[in-house]
This record gives sequence, C-alpha cells and structure tokens, in this order.
Amino acid sequence: MKKREKISEAVIRRLPRYYHCLKELEKDGITRVSSTVISGMLNITASQVRQDFSNFGEFGQQGYGYDVDFLKTKISSLLGLDSAYNVIVVGGGNIGRALANYRGFLNEGFNVLAVFDNRQFDLELRDGIPLLSMEKLKKFIRENNVDICFIATNAESAKEVAALVIKSGIKAVWNFAPVDLYLGENVAVENINMSESLFMLSYKLKNLTPQD
Amino acid sequence: MKKREKISEAVIRRLPRYYHCLKELEKDGITRVSSTVISGMLNITASQVRQDFSNFGEFGQQGYGYDVDFLKTKISSLLGLDSAYNVIVVGGGNIGRALANYRGFLNEGFNVLAVFDNRQFDLELRDGIPLLSMEKLKKFIRENNVDICFIATNAESAKEVAALVIKSGIKAVWNFAPVDLYLGENVAVENINMSESLFMLSYKLKNLTPQD
Repeated sequence: MKKREKISEAVIRRLPRYYHCLKELEKDGITRVSSTVISGMLNITASQVRQDFSNFGEFGQQGYGYDVDFLKTKISSLLGLDSAYNVIVVGGGNIGRALANYRGFLNEGFNVLAVFDNRQFDLELRDGIPLLSMEKLKKFIRENNVDICFIATNAESAKEVAALVIKSGIKAVWNFAPVDLYLGENVAVENINMSESLFMLSYKLKNLTPQD
Repeated sequence: MKKREKISEAVIRRLPRYYHCLKELEKDGITRVSSTVISGMLNITASQVRQDFSNFGEFGQQGYGYDVDFLKTKISSLLGLDSAYNVIVVGGGNIGRALANYRGFLNEGFNVLAVFDNRQFDLELRDGIPLLSMEKLKKFIRENNVDICFIATNAESAKEVAALVIKSGIKAVWNFAPVDLYLGENVAVENINMSESLFMLSYKLKNLTPQD
C-alpha cells in the first residue's frame, strides 16, 4: 500500500476556499481556469495556487489551465465532501436553529436529523426536523448512525455534551459554544468561537485610530 | 505622550479567551486567581499566562495571584469592550436573524439597531428590532451613528454590501458570508467562514482512520 504523503495544514486550510471558488466558476459555466484567475479570486499568489495544486498530483497543464470539474471533484474528495453525513444539533437557541435550518450545509451532504434541547419552545425548523429532549440523545445517535454533532449550547454545557456524544460513538464535533474544546486525537473538532472573533473586531476598531 | 508598545497578535488573540475566563470566575464569586488556574481553564501553560499578562503592566504579585475584577476591567478596556457599539445586520436569513437575536452580544455592548434585507418575511426579531429594506441603509447608518455592520448575506452580495456601508461611514465589518473580505487598513474586519470550518471538520473526520 502506498503511504499517503503528509500535506501541510496551511495547504489543507486553503482547500475549502479553492473548493468554493471552483463551485462559483462552475455555476458561471466556466470549465477551464488558470492559476491567475483563482489567484485573483482568493487573494493568494498564482504561484502559491500552482504549488498547492501540485501537492495533489497533476491537475493542470502549463498554458492550458485547470479543468474546473476535475479539480472540484478532486478537492471535494480530499475534503470528504463526496460522502454524506448524518448530523445532530445540540442546543436549540438562535445559533442552533440557524445551523439546523441552513440549506447550504444540506446541499454539501450534511444532513441535520434532529435538534436536541431540554427547553420546550416553538422552533421553526425546516422539513419537520424534530426537537427532542436530551435524554433521547444517546439512543438516537446509535440508531441513526450519526456522524457529526454541532454543539450550540452555552460554555458550561459544551464539554459535558461533547463527552456524552463521543461516548455514544460520534467522531466529529463542530463547536459553537464560547469555549474551545480539545477532545483528543480520535475525534475531529472544529471550534467557531464567535465572541472571540467579535472581541477581536472591537479591538481592531479601537486600534484603527489610536487615542493617545 | 508615551508611545504604545506593540503587542504581538498571538497575545491579542488570546485576550478574548482570558476575558471570558475571568467573567466565569467572577460569576462564581472568585476574586483572586493564580496563573495556574487560568492555565487549567484554557489549555495554555501557566508561564504563557504570566508572560501574556506582563505585556499589560503589573497585574499580579508572585504567590498572591491576580485580582479578577482588575484584570477583567483592564482586558475589557484593551479589547474595546468598555465602549458601546451601534450595530446593523445586513442579511435577514438564518444567520442574520440569529446574530440579531443573540442577547450575549447585547450584554457586551453590541446593540443591534436594525436588520436590512430586501426580502419580506416574518422575522422573529427581539425587542422590536425593525427589518428594513436596503435602500434605507445609507441614511440609517448616518443618522444612527452605526459603528459596526454584521454581514450575513451570500458570497455574491458581501463585497458590494461592505463597499456600501464603508462609504456610509462604518469602520468595522463582521463578515459571515462565505467569502473572506479584505477592506484595507482603515476598516476593521473579522471573517467567520463557517463553511470553511465545516469542510475542515469533514477533512479531519475523513483522515481520522485512513482507508488505505
């Protein structure tokens, strides 16, 4: 078996942007694209684009450009977007609801099956996604082969929820609670710390024009 | 006038986490805290915590710990969280609505005044936040001293919206559209690219257990 070559995290981090860019091009009916065009769309140098793509084999030819469909399919596969995922959302507040209702994720294969919250409220959830109580969580994960949990609880509950869903067999957590989760090497985690980003924004705003 | 010392971005990036941690301690009635405790809460080494805090002057004494209230106030001020901000949200979809309704931001001084979208729908917005059409945007920004715009549109509209609000005098943009915005040195920008993060999650999930 051929050993997979290690691709640097910086390159991997750019893949979603390439993927998005290629989807845009495809939508516009463009079938071939140069590194220069991609460079202009993403604020990345053209040589960086070529270097990144060379990591994944021969995607293009000099002077001829890249095949948009082939490249998109390849990157989609690298990112695991050629699979479909069963998703649950824990936390039925504003963010949890937005995540459950957003069709963009569904289009990429992330299929939200249910929202879990112990509070009872009128949720406007699309397509009859049920709101279930937390006590049903473990059973639901096992019976529905759930792959990913979106956590949209408060900071206090997030660690507990993560521990619970991992114990029930979930291997990936997308965390929106305002606390970064570290869940070990056997679980995929991405933290979106919104308040951290907002506070950085106010820091930058304050420091645009120093007062002293 | 004393020249402000340049603090490294890595340190700045940790400030929101310290701030959040200190708020938690305060909520629990804790008035003094050691670097070791903060270290344990944030997965940062205690010596890193001490080094970071030393950037901002004498916050603590050896063996005595840090004054939680003093430290929180100081970091709050560094982050610009001692001011109040007038905010508008452009884009009334799932994410825009969640941002407008989230009380956590209001508690930190980010006051959402209105949501702008040309679509007409029943928005469940808190406290009578109005949904206004885009043609009212420029006038509203000028008349209400709006500081910050949260952009929650699609990728295609985001750049246009950013250009418009900046022209109307806004100096800070929090961008949730799936395209990173670069708006020059005179505008504070933070991009939250959710699909990028989700795709990284599926990449990580795929690479937890290599198939080959």
